Amino acid sequence: MLLKNNIPIGYVLGKVKYDSALVAIYAIVVTVSHQLNIFNFDIPIGGVPAILGTVISLLLAFRSNQAYDRWWEARIVWGAIVNDSRSFARQVITFIGNLYDSGSTGELKERLIKRQIAWNYALTKSLRKQDPYKDIKRLLSESDFEFVKAYDNVPNALLKLQGMDINRATNEGLLNQFQQIELERTLMKLTDSMGKCERIKSTVFPETYTLYIRLAIYLFITVLPFSLFGLFGYISIPLVIAIGTLFLLIEKMAVHLQDPFENKPTDTPMSTISAKIERDLMQMWLDDRMEDQRDEAKNADRKMFYIL
Amino acid sequence: MLLKNNIPIGYVLGKVKYDSALVAIYAIVVTVSHQLNIFNFDIPIGGVPAILGTVISLLLAFRSNQAYDRWWEARIVWGAIVNDSRSFARQVITFIGNLYDSGSTGELKERLIKRQIAWNYALTKSLRKQDPYKDIKRLLSESDFEFVKAYDNVPNALLKLQGMDINRATNEGLLNQFQQIELERTLMKLTDSMGKCERIKSTVFPETYTLYIRLAIYLFITVLPFSLFGLFGYISIPLVIAIGTLFLLIEKMAVHLQDPFENKPTDTPMSTISAKIERDLMQMWLDDRMEDQRDEAKNADRKMFYIL
Amino acid sequence: MLLKNNIPIGYVLGKVKYDSALVAIYAIVVTVSHQLNIFNFDIPIGGVPAILGTVISLLLAFRSNQAYDRWWEARIVWGAIVNDSRSFARQVITFIGNLYDSGSTGELKERLIKRQIAWNYALTKSLRKQDPYKDIKRLLSESDFEFVKAYDNVPNALLKLQGMDINRATNEGLLNQFQQIELERTLMKLTDSMGKCERIKSTVFPETYTLYIRLAIYLFITVLPFSLFGLFGYISIPLVIAIGTLFLLIEKMAVHLQDPFENKPTDTPMSTISAKIERDLMQMWLDDRMEDQRDEAKNADRKMFYIL
Amino acid sequence: MLLKNNIPIGYVLGKVKYDSALVAIYAIVVTVSHQLNIFNFDIPIGGVPAILGTVISLLLAFRSNQAYDRWWEARIVWGAIVNDSRSFARQVITFIGNLYDSGSTGELKERLIKRQIAWNYALTKSLRKQDPYKDIKRLLSESDFEFVKAYDNVPNALLKLQGMDINRATNEGLLNQFQQIELERTLMKLTDSMGKCERIKSTVFPETYTLYIRLAIYLFITVLPFSLFGLFGYISIPLVIAIGTLFLLIEKMAVHLQDPFENKPTDTPMSTISAKIERDLMQMWLDDRMEDQRDEAKNADRKMFYIL
Amino acid sequence: MLLKNNIPIGYVLGKVKYDSALVAIYAIVVTVSHQLNIFNFDIPIGGVPAILGTVISLLLAFRSNQAYDRWWEARIVWGAIVNDSRSFARQVITFIGNLYDSGSTGELKERLIKRQIAWNYALTKSLRKQDPYKDIKRLLSESDFEFVKAYDNVPNALLKLQGMDINRATNEGLLNQFQQIELERTLMKLTDSMGKCERIKSTVFPETYTLYIRLAIYLFITVLPFSLFGLFGYISIPLVIAIGTLFLLIEKMAVHLQDPFENKPTDTPMSTISAKIERDLMQMWLDDRMEDQRDEAKNADRKMFYIL
Repeated sequence: MLLKNNIPIGYVLGKVKYDSALVAIYAIVVTVSHQLNIFNFDIPIGGVPAILGTVISLLLAFRSNQAYDRWWEARIVWGAIVNDSRSFARQVITFIGNLYDSGSTGELKERLIKRQIAWNYALTKSLRKQDPYKDIKRLLSESDFEFVKAYDNVPNALLKLQGMDINRATNEGLLNQFQQIELERTLMKLTDSMGKCERIKSTVFPETYTLYIRLAIYLFITVLPFSLFGLFGYISIPLVIAIGTLFLLIEKMAVHLQDPFENKPTDTPMSTISAKIERDLMQMWLDDRMEDQRDEAKNADRKMFYIL
Repeated sequence: MLLKNNIPIGYVLGKVKYDSALVAIYAIVVTVSHQLNIFNFDIPIGGVPAILGTVISLLLAFRSNQAYDRWWEARIVWGAIVNDSRSFARQVITFIGNLYDSGSTGELKERLIKRQIAWNYALTKSLRKQDPYKDIKRLLSESDFEFVKAYDNVPNALLKLQGMDINRATNEGLLNQFQQIELERTLMKLTDSMGKCERIKSTVFPETYTLYIRLAIYLFITVLPFSLFGLFGYISIPLVIAIGTLFLLIEKMAVHLQDPFENKPTDTPMSTISAKIERDLMQMWLDDRMEDQRDEAKNADRKMFYIL
Repeated sequence: MLLKNNIPIGYVLGKVKYDSALVAIYAIVVTVSHQLNIFNFDIPIGGVPAILGTVISLLLAFRSNQAYDRWWEARIVWGAIVNDSRSFARQVITFIGNLYDSGSTGELKERLIKRQIAWNYALTKSLRKQDPYKDIKRLLSESDFEFVKAYDNVPNALLKLQGMDINRATNEGLLNQFQQIELERTLMKLTDSMGKCERIKSTVFPETYTLYIRLAIYLFITVLPFSLFGLFGYISIPLVIAIGTLFLLIEKMAVHLQDPFENKPTDTPMSTISAKIERDLMQMWLDDRMEDQRDEAKNADRKMFYIL
Repeated sequence: MLLKNNIPIGYVLGKVKYDSALVAIYAIVVTVSHQLNIFNFDIPIGGVPAILGTVISLLLAFRSNQAYDRWWEARIVWGAIVNDSRSFARQVITFIGNLYDSGSTGELKERLIKRQIAWNYALTKSLRKQDPYKDIKRLLSESDFEFVKAYDNVPNALLKLQGMDINRATNEGLLNQFQQIELERTLMKLTDSMGKCERIKSTVFPETYTLYIRLAIYLFITVLPFSLFGLFGYISIPLVIAIGTLFLLIEKMAVHLQDPFENKPTDTPMSTISAKIERDLMQMWLDDRMEDQRDEAKNADRKMFYIL
Repeated sequence: MLLKNNIPIGYVLGKVKYDSALVAIYAIVVTVSHQLNIFNFDIPIGGVPAILGTVISLLLAFRSNQAYDRWWEARIVWGAIVNDSRSFARQVITFIGNLYDSGSTGELKERLIKRQIAWNYALTKSLRKQDPYKDIKRLLSESDFEFVKAYDNVPNALLKLQGMDINRATNEGLLNQFQQIELERTLMKLTDSMGKCERIKSTVFPETYTLYIRLAIYLFITVLPFSLFGLFGYISIPLVIAIGTLFLLIEKMAVHLQDPFENKPTDTPMSTISAKIERDLMQMWLDDRMEDQRDEAKNADRKMFYIL
């Protein structure tokens, strides 16, 4: 359900262009000074740079793993939201009412399904700290819209409305107690997914790791030209820039992946997913209304078939 | 349940043949130039190549791990689909109806089981972006087939039909409320498996990682012959080709594993699994019909045995 | 739900300042002695330091992974506590009572919700070994407060009170048996979260690993200046300090992360989370009371809508 | 429940003896040729061998991890089978019937428990592609045995028989609907465990990884003597054999672990586990029959105690 | 719940003292021979030792990870046992009986809770292969004690007794069917935890890995002094001992962690946990009895409060 989105390389390179420029200037100054014999000492590359290279590689591997896990967890959570939205709609359509009153509960079903669609948009906006009301106004009744405007946490308010409607439907006898529990459990799963998104959003990756990795990379870049100019002369300049930029890019990539709800190109495509859920659920719902009409014709035979 | 399928080595080697040829040409040009004294400088191999080797090794390990996890998760999901299909069939056969009307509910059971078989084929085709209607026509009733043709998401439509049939059977008294909930939960598990497949299918592995690893490998190959010709002369040509191709192959392998629904030889064998589910479920179902006939003979004594 | 909290760098550096000072003194003494020709031998840096560097890097990666997993598990547990608190409140509000007696069960609902809020504060304090009674007095009735004062494990006592109130409500007919089971399951989840926090709190990371890593780092630092002064002279002093401090910092970071309930800056922000839960739950509860009043006006039409 | 089984070292060494012999011959030929000055060039060991050593180490670590995970997952699945078999037996014994008819349901209970025992043996044999009928004949009634002989998938057929017996018992009133659902869920867990075993059995580890690792090891061994004879002379022969065999052994170990159902010494001890389950379940069952007799004596007082 | 237990360093060092002594003797013999010019050749440390160092580091990281995971899984299982014991006690106290007969079911509740306490002690002893009867005699009735003495698997027998008591209570009407299922599920969780402990206890870590790692370490130590005495002379002796002992210690640590039920200092503190569960459950139980008495006084008002 997530889009095949190419992360624009230019965008990512843009993020390290200042760092790369600094690396380039440093490499040029050091190498030129050395070639002009302004100073003169070498560092054997098998020594300090190799040790630092191993340390940085392992720290970057650790860092990339954790960042990737956060990013992948975010996608798993939104995958679960898609599944639970579909299951919720299927349960609403098949549980509520029965063969004999299939028409009369339509308004309740529509309200529940549209509110679920609104929940996805509201969660998207609230995670991105954008105005949560724009997308959902067209999906909610006026009284519902007034209700959720009083809340800080709009998705939570929508879930409460769902719970109250389900409870009323149970009290009215439109759902039996088992079905109420099943729908309630689907709501609990949505509550859990919402909480997981909030946890990922608001838990920063330990800042100090970022700091240590950067310190190690800068130390490495500082030492690197001294190991190379003796061997390569001016060719060491592009080598330093290439290796330094490579390390900086990998580190930057991890920083991007670790915050999957920040409205960046590597972001979880929540708006696209929400739109897809809307299409799926509206199709299920419209189709159910037509099915009702067809059903009225067919009911007689089918019922006969089962009971006889 | 997945086939013991040898991944054709030729197929994989074919994928890197252009890269390998380029590496070969580069290695030959550089080495011959050097041997002919066209230019003259060495890179100690303990230096830049060793650092790049460590970085590439760790990136490839990270990459292989994530790709393997996606591939393995895809197999786990299809393993769960096999289990849930079997459990669904067993529940349909044992839950619906009772000893006294064992014959009359046969058509409903057959419809549910065949629709479950069709679901597997439809999911396979829809993940591979192939025509989803070819395999399922023979398994569905005409009205069902018309119904699902109106949907973009065929497997989802089939699950909705299952849910509606189960609800009708409950309203008719052929299932009690507990049994409805159990069957509904099995449908939820299938919804979840479907969603997981879609998530893996549509979430691209971060493109930039692929880019960085390739950049690092190309940088490594660029530098490598300069480290080797001083030591080996012309023997360095096959060494560069061997080591370069090895890195490229491992990288390619990860790219293959990471997309387990793309109709490649390393793919999840979904058609084979679907056919196996069809065999298993049809055997359970046909057998159940014969069992019914035997049962009619045996019922009297068994019942006596239990109740007395 | 967790705060975007910058870990103060000064705080962390403060923790290694004595170690760093020792490293500095050692590096100065050894390097100066060497430069004054008091003794004279070199260690090639590609040898012992490189091997030790690899060993330390892998041990630190292992260590950081495990520490990070503990820290992340602690956040996951508190994320689950947020989710379960919200679900519990929603269930209490929608399950207890029905449309016709919506006013009369208010006191019971308030008691259950406030006790859930108190549970979060009590768990926070008890994990931090602080006075658990201060924050919860205002949230509990006098008899409840007396009751929990008799217990060593205050959160456990609060859960027992919840269980007893829910059982009484079931006996009184305010909850049906399904609803009791659902609420009981939410209590079980809270029991599990509490137990997980206690497990992380009281299970020390194997001390010997810490010891081995420190031994390896000290051995590395002991050997390092002998590998560097031959190459760099006095410049080796800042290099030894930088590399030594880097290793010590990464090790210290892991030690900090591995104890997420110790009242340190890298701690899980449990007080903030508890306060956030209080805001959310009180909003849901107050809103429910107003809703009741609005409901009384609306009930007639809605009921008509459903039943007709 | 799994046996403390020492993997015979001789067995494993036997598997690499041809490879080791080839390595030995190669090392001897190369070293002797060199010592006799037939050819003359050295490879510095810090170069190509070190890079290949790092690559191989990381690939072997990746490989060992995945193989170990498969092996450990297989043991976890069989651990779950033990747990679910015990729970199934306990549920059968305590659910079916009640205090007043404790004797009369004995035959049904015995059939269910013995069939569960047979299921374990049948699954063992079917995973090892051995004759599945030998062990189970003594445990099944004649009609059951005829029934399962018609099936390709014997364990699946046994589960279907269990489901049908449980459904009949429910229809006869020997189980209530909740208890049927609980037993059905235990059957679903057993279905899941069976499917997991089949998934591990039939999913080959990607062949190409094995190929790449072997290629890298052979390349490493090819290069190694050239790096060593300059330093060690004839002593390099045992060194090459030792290091080469070590890499080959670790690779072989991973290959063994990754197929835990192949009837090798490192296999999951399924027969032993099945025999242990038989002992446990028969003890529970025999004991239950004696308990019944004791119970008849005691019933009066106990009942009085509860009810009064 | 697990104790802050310092693993005695002396204890661990004691385990490697013979190995370390051998390393010391070997290092002294080789170095002295070399210094006396008995033989004369060097191994450059960047070569064989560096490659072996990388291999050993990665194998040790793999090994430590798997061992740590076993150890941590054991603690997680015992954490779950604590949670489930508490939940079981809370369910027994709140489910059984109701407000009007709160006194008369006391003996049943006491029997169930004390048996749960006994189960923890019995599991501890049985995992440690110690006499399982000593601790539990005081907690069981005489007839229960006779019953379990006939069983090989004492904890399993206790769970069967719990299941039978719960079934009897249901038949007597003291529990409804939902409550029976909930208690049965808690028993299933305890069965699972027991099975997980047995699985960890009886599944040996693949012996061959231990063998390969030791072989690699011994090969490394054999080669190491030849790389060092040329550079350090007699100072190479403590270096060889320090590095060799470090590797042996890390390997030993993993061996210790991987068997968490073997009655060693790094063991899971099961006795302490069992005693803690006893304290918690007895407090809940005693408190419940006093509560009963208080309740009798209060009941009138509370009931009025709810119903009015």
